[in-house]
Amino acid sequence: MNKNQPIGIFDSGLGGLTVLKALQEKLPNESFVYIGDTAHVPYGNKSQKAIINYTKTLSNFLIEDHNVKMIIVACNTASSIALKSLQRAYKIPIIDVISPIQSLLLENNQIKRIGIIGTHNTVKSKAYNKLLLSINPKLKIFSQACPLFVPIIEEGLENHQITKIISGEYLDPLIYKKIEALILGCTHYPILKKNIKSFLPASIKIFDSAETLSIHTKKYLINNSLISSSSNHATHLFITDESDHFNRFACHILNNQFSTISSIQLF
Amino acid sequence: MNKNQPIGIFDSGLGGLTVLKALQEKLPNESFVYIGDTAHVPYGNKSQKAIINYTKTLSNFLIEDHNVKMIIVACNTASSIALKSLQRAYKIPIIDVISPIQSLLLENNQIKRIGIIGTHNTVKSKAYNKLLLSINPKLKIFSQACPLFVPIIEEGLENHQITKIISGEYLDPLIYKKIEALILGCTHYPILKKNIKSFLPASIKIFDSAETLSIHTKKYLINNSLISSSSNHATHLFITDESDHFNRFACHILNNQFSTISSIQLF
Repeated sequence: MNKNQPIGIFDSGLGGLTVLKALQEKLPNESFVYIGDTAHVPYGNKSQKAIINYTKTLSNFLIEDHNVKMIIVACNTASSIALKSLQRAYKIPIIDVISPIQSLLLENNQIKRIGIIGTHNTVKSKAYNKLLLSINPKLKIFSQACPLFVPIIEEGLENHQITKIISGEYLDPLIYKKIEALILGCTHYPILKKNIKSFLPASIKIFDSAETLSIHTKKYLINNSLISSSSNHATHLFITDESDHFNRFACHILNNQFSTISSIQLF
Repeated sequence: MNKNQPIGIFDSGLGGLTVLKALQEKLPNESFVYIGDTAHVPYGNKSQKAIINYTKTLSNFLIEDHNVKMIIVACNTASSIALKSLQRAYKIPIIDVISPIQSLLLENNQIKRIGIIGTHNTVKSKAYNKLLLSINPKLKIFSQACPLFVPIIEEGLENHQITKIISGEYLDPLIYKKIEALILGCTHYPILKKNIKSFLPASIKIFDSAETLSIHTKKYLINNSLISSSSNHATHLFITDESDHFNRFACHILNNQFSTISSIQLF
């Protein structure tokens, strides 16, 4: 494997761009190829079988057409459902957005009560619960699906009063359970991080999976001598169905730090 | 064509079930085959090219596998984008959810100012505007995208306070424009009809496209001697990706008035 090959990233749509942004900041010499499956977005309401098929097609595209050195699954739903199938199917490293949270938990081993927020599918999968309990079986874990957060973010309503009201309904039960940390279990949610923070007591730590994943990936690349040494780096974005909405979000979230956006027919 | 063949209906997901319900009520002797494209739901964020491809695949399924006598496009986004392509491609009658509104307008020819609510895609397509202005070029038309209504309905939050707040933001500008009628330009919206009604001055008429379409379809079948005479009728539901959510909604909206729900692999 050549360390100067790009890193592949996929998501169901645009949420994973928060992960790409965190990776760009932590790894300024890397090249990235991102693919958002806008033909099937959102994954939150699709079946497990369908999600496994879609993510294999996306992975084939990244490996065969773009020769990526690793794949980042920048989507919580796909991470919770498809990771093992993908790791069995491909030889290159595949890092998901959920697993890196375990190192954060080990660093914060005083935490005994933890909250998780995500889509219906992520909460239903119990992927975080399984991971966290495998590290510390005595942890008390409280999950909360926040299905309106994604449409609120996609409509740019972060500062709208309905966001305060619905945040209260989603987060109050977790505050009541005296959680000491909250995992943002959806790649859209970092966009709401400030709002969520203002809603929680200051003592509750926020575990942002985009940031955590980027730290984990950097460590992984260093430990495996895979850090790029090229000064000729670029970020290329692909989508599986044309979407002005994606284009606007990409410019906004990434501060225009990408070379191209292309729509391709994979399905 | 045999008048006892079933009527085919398709939608991007479950919204079209409100149309199916209205049709079942108006046409109790008909058989129906409904297909919801849960693999691609929602259509509101997909490209025109993709939507035309998806709807052709759904139409082929209804015609070739179920020998339907006509097709109802029970989805506003698909109606506004794909209708003409479908009508060119197939010989059987294809009725969309938008066109029947013209007869309502002719019956209510005193109306001069009209509001339309729908998804971003439906509003952007201006399909209603073109139709309405072709009947009366002097009409004043005011459109409003209501992107949060679908997630609110799918989460069962019709009676939540955020629905009142967001309804106010969506509908107040239309009330301010002194509209005399409001078109519910999304097949999900009949589920919010009571809420919307309570929000508007009593003088504003509500044009519900599901109801209007069912009246139009009945007239069409009578005029073309296509009304079923069979006492052996049934409703069969199909989805393109498994979805518990669809199953629950189907039981709820249709009061269990269907024979089967099956998931099939079309894409």
